[in-house]
This record gives sequence, C-alpha cells and structure tokens, in this order.
Amino acid sequence: MPTMTRVFNFSAGPAVLPVEVLEQAQRDLLSLPGVGMSILEISHRSPTFEGILADCEADLRTLGGIPKDYRVLFLQGGASLQFSMVPMNLLPANGSADYIVTGAWSQKAVKEAKRVGSVKIAATTEGENFTRVPRQDELKLDPGAAYVHYTTNNTIFGTEFHYVPDVGNVPLVTDASSDMFSRPIDVSRFAVIYAGAQKNLAPAGVTLAIVRNDMLERTPASLPTMLQYGVHAENSSMYNTPPVFTIYVMRLVLAWLLKQGGLEAIDRLNARKAEKLYAEIDRTGFYRGHAQKDSRSRMNVTFRLPSEDLEKKFAKEATAAGLDGLKGHRSVGGMRASIYNAFPEAGVDALVRFMQDFEKKNG
Amino acid sequence: MPTMTRVFNFSAGPAVLPVEVLEQAQRDLLSLPGVGMSILEISHRSPTFEGILADCEADLRTLGGIPKDYRVLFLQGGASLQFSMVPMNLLPANGSADYIVTGAWSQKAVKEAKRVGSVKIAATTEGENFTRVPRQDELKLDPGAAYVHYTTNNTIFGTEFHYVPDVGNVPLVTDASSDMFSRPIDVSRFAVIYAGAQKNLAPAGVTLAIVRNDMLERTPASLPTMLQYGVHAENSSMYNTPPVFTIYVMRLVLAWLLKQGGLEAIDRLNARKAEKLYAEIDRTGFYRGHAQKDSRSRMNVTFRLPSEDLEKKFAKEATAAGLDGLKGHRSVGGMRASIYNAFPEAGVDALVRFMQDFEKKNG
Repeated sequence: MPTMTRVFNFSAGPAVLPVEVLEQAQRDLLSLPGVGMSILEISHRSPTFEGILADCEADLRTLGGIPKDYRVLFLQGGASLQFSMVPMNLLPANGSADYIVTGAWSQKAVKEAKRVGSVKIAATTEGENFTRVPRQDELKLDPGAAYVHYTTNNTIFGTEFHYVPDVGNVPLVTDASSDMFSRPIDVSRFAVIYAGAQKNLAPAGVTLAIVRNDMLERTPASLPTMLQYGVHAENSSMYNTPPVFTIYVMRLVLAWLLKQGGLEAIDRLNARKAEKLYAEIDRTGFYRGHAQKDSRSRMNVTFRLPSEDLEKKFAKEATAAGLDGLKGHRSVGGMRASIYNAFPEAGVDALVRFMQDFEKKNG
Repeated sequence: MPTMTRVFNFSAGPAVLPVEVLEQAQRDLLSLPGVGMSILEISHRSPTFEGILADCEADLRTLGGIPKDYRVLFLQGGASLQFSMVPMNLLPANGSADYIVTGAWSQKAVKEAKRVGSVKIAATTEGENFTRVPRQDELKLDPGAAYVHYTTNNTIFGTEFHYVPDVGNVPLVTDASSDMFSRPIDVSRFAVIYAGAQKNLAPAGVTLAIVRNDMLERTPASLPTMLQYGVHAENSSMYNTPPVFTIYVMRLVLAWLLKQGGLEAIDRLNARKAEKLYAEIDRTGFYRGHAQKDSRSRMNVTFRLPSEDLEKKFAKEATAAGLDGLKGHRSVGGMRASIYNAFPEAGVDALVRFMQDFEKKNG
C-alpha cells in the first residue's frame, strides 16, 4: 500500500481525525511558523503554547457555550483516572453517590467510586446485556446524593442517552468521552463533564474536564496534589507539564469543528451518517442491531450477522476492502462501526454498499 | 522567519528532539506506511501499535541493559504523579521513607510522600541554595526505610548526581526525568526509576517507569486502579488508552539513540558539550556558574552574569541571535542552557561564540 493511501477507520478510539487537521500538523511539524521549533519541542511555558492553550479553551467555550462559572481543565490519565478523581474530589467520607450503569465503562466508574465511599446504583440495564439506557422514570435517585454519575454514550454496546437525566438539585457528573461535542450540549445541566479526548476531540493523551466552580471546594486537602481539580484550575492546567502536542491537535480539531458550523452542523451530519447505517441494518433483517432503537448510539453502531462465521467473513472482507476496525467488542460480538465527528460520510456510504453486496452474496 | 528555519532550543523541557526523528514523524503523519491511517488515529489495540510498544520496550531494555526482573511501564501524569504513586505503592502505613533533597523537584516529592506516610530527610542542600548535591558521607540513612528517594539531576539549579548513592539493602527510587539515558545506567542498583519523558526521550505526555518486580507486591489493594504499578504491569501499559503518538515518537528517539552508538556514545557527546560550556564559564570570571564544580549538571548549565541588567541584555540578544530559551529559573536567576541528548553540538559552539562576543562588548 502506498504511503498516502488512507483507509476508512471505524476504530472505537483512538479514532479518525479530520484530514485537514493531519495536513496542518504535518506541514508545521518540523518548525511552527514564526517559532523555529517543532510543537513537539516547545516549552509549555512559552508564549506560543500559552496562546495555543488559551485558544483551545476559548474554542471549547464558544463551541459548548460553557458558562463563566465553569473551569476548563486539560488533564491526563483518560476517563480511567477520572473514575477515581470524581469520587476523590466530590464524595465526602460520610456521603453517597448515585451511579447509572449502562455498560463496561460505568461499571469501572462504580468500582473506583466504591474504593472511596458509598455508592448506590440508581439504575442498571445489565440484565438486558446493556441493549438500552434506562428511561428517566426508571431512575431511583437519592435526593441526598453527593452527585449522580452516568455515561452519555457506551462505545462497547452502541447505546447513547438521548436525554439529560433530571436529577433535581443533585450535581450531575457525566463521562462524555465518546460523544462529547458530537451534538449541542447544555453545560449548565452538569456539575462535571469529563472526556478522554481520543474519540471526537484529539489523539490519545489528553482528558478534558469541565468543572463547575462550586465543585472545586469539596476536595479534601489530603488528596494527592495531581488529583485535585482545584490545583489544575488554579494553575490553568499548567501545574505540571501538559501534553503539549495533543492539546495543539485538539486546537486544530476545534478550529475545524467551528469551520464545519459548530455543534448544530456536526449534529446534523452525525444524525445523517447514523441514520444511513441504521436504515441499512433495519432494511431486511439480515443484519440485527444490538441496541434497542430508542437507545441507539450515533457514534458506535453495533450489529450482528446471522452467524459468527458470517461475522468473521464480513470483518475479513471489509478490512480487505479498506473498511478497517469493524470487529465488535467481545462482550457484544458481531460488528461495530464507530463514526465519530471526523469520520467521513463517504466511509458510511462505502460501508452501506459493502453491507448490501455482502448480503446479496451471503444472504 | 520562514517556516523551516530552526533556532537552537535551550529549553529545560519539553526540549529539542533529533531532526531526523521529526522528519520521520512528519513524513508518515498522514498515513503510516502499510497501515493507511495516521499514528494519531490508530487503535491502541491494533497490531501496529502493539508492535511499536513492544519495539519501544525492547529498545529501552537494550539501551539500558534492563534486567529481566524489571517491568517497563508507560504511564501518564509526569514525574508529578510519580511523586504520589511512589509512596502510595511503596510506603506502608507504619513505614518511613528517606528522601534526599536537592532542589524544587525533590521538595515536591517530599510534600506528596508526607500525604501518605512518614518521611525522613536523609540530606538536604537547601541551606546552600542547592548549589550542590550531598556527598555519600553526608547521607543519614535509615536502614529500616521503606525506600530512599532522590532526584538524579536538578533542572532548576543545574546540579547532578555523578554517583549512585549506596543505600545498602534499602530499595533505591530515583526521579531521572532530566538525565535519563544521557549516560550509561546500572538499573540493577535501583528498585524504581521514573522519568517524565519530555527531556531526553520524547515529547511531553508519557512517563517512563522501570519497576523491579518485588516492588509490585507492596501495593495496597485499596489504591485507585490507575495508580497501581501492578495493574499497569499486568496489562502491559494498556489498562487504559496509552498516549499512542508520544510512545511512537519515543520509539523513534530510541532508534536514533541506538544509531548514535547507545548510551556510551551519547555519554561522550554530552560530556564534550557540557565541558565546552563550563570551560567558557570558567575562562575569565565574567560568567559565574551556579553549581559547585563537582555537582555540575551535564544537562542544565546554570550561570550568572555580573549584573541583572546584563543578564536581561544577554537573554534578549541571545534570542535575537537564534539561541532560544536561555533565561534561567527565577529561583536561581541568570541563564540556563539545557543541552539534552538531542541538543546539537553546533548549538553549544554557537552559544560559546555568543558568550565570548557578549563578554568582549560588555565585559
């Protein structure tokens, strides 16, 4: 395969980035214009990087309409470290937190919270192999909870919340790793939003956290400094050396997103891409979606074929046809097409054609 | 300044990388040969990345002669998070750890250890504004300590240990962030070696930890999963999504280092570069080194000028001459020339010439 040939990358994350972002990063990789050093080499204390960080935050605020009483933090360790940082910062020793369990990632979040304090399961759909997210009327909420935690989109099972749970006055915390900025978001509904960036925002290596100011005051002083939200807020994400290059690429991705028309525009595009795939899945019954219809994810489309042998064949032939990363997670089986913001509509069209051809030959 | 002009980058970190590493990363940034995706987009579970990670570890083992009973871990959060992970994993509730204090970074390490347990200061040179590291005969070591911690090189003060402390049978832990792989290292003398990678190894965003197997058994089960060395060891640094691109660049840097002739060769080059600068500092007395001679760092060369006005003038004119990042840290003042592995000898020669010119005009 020649160097410059690109396949369609359906990976669940790290995931596809806009080609023009890659081209810009490539063009300037040896030396940033006017700087004389690579972005891989510049000091995080340089005016150049301070500008990149400030622009990145400004674009995040513009895109997400983030209110002034929220801090925007650039952290490391992914959602996995947030599973611990959230309870360590927000769950008092004598308190309890509500968790809505909709898949493997919420289960991991529960596991880490239990190391810190008391956890109540407000709802779980594990009994249905996580084929859906719970409805509002199924949530058993504790009005005295320190916070309610949920996962907006479940990459493995291909389900997504299409509503923001109403939790009254209890702070709402969400892991939005896999659908952050794929649609408009009302930040004011949340106390904390966190997202590993490697799906819709950047390459792997940076974690976005949007934290309402009052949440910064709960942190016990005994916590390791690097795990305190307040420390990162006070130091504008520069308490330690941030992942400079990853933040730089996030900046390019956000500029691209603004150029596309922002979250309303990407919302329409994502809806259209997902609808095309689900329409094909529903067309004849040869393919079967894993998620129930009202919980279907627009980011990760999970589906089965009539047999495991056909699924293996499908994955193999798809890869050979330049449709890469379609093998589903072992807990669901079958296929998973991850079609994040930067995934091109042409790739969705190519997959739909491939599915139709495959069904004709094997149906 | 045209896009491709590169200055000499004396930054203390993130720091200069080999030009051929940058060129290779640039060439393949849109699409890795034979893969059809950018390194910024590939799944960390892909055979391509698994190969990069395995090659990276193999090169680290070759370069450092890392014995088989040590695990090589790729973590996030920099040395700052290691300041907490070390005591959280290695310091029992009723134990005590010895810390050798030689600068701002060891002080931060002490602060985090004290949140976990009991700390004894085995030695400190704070009273001398950290102009040197302590001698072996100054170390007050507790034979019952859980471990002894020290910082091999002090970026801010420009001092470096030129010996490995003899601590008997007590496990020796070192923060080698700023001189890792700048010279041969006898890994078997250490229980844990950690290093933020953004000086000699990679761009910012990955932390190397080399952990002797027996150290993995001390971790309390209650620790947050992401902070347990053992979890990262069991999962071969893939418990969560690792910083794919940063590890890829580390892989390129290590291949470059092997091509230079490994640690013995880079040791000779680093010695030569540092000697040239210190010779100029010592030549007339116009410049004054901050560090005492037997503690001088070969990575960060700190020096003062006769007045603060001259220091400002020096920094300004040096920057204009394409010698960037020479302003020293505020706790020392004056100048700091960071000349890590990848810093070109031509840049040292250029600085020496600039220093001579500057002295002629202002001496």
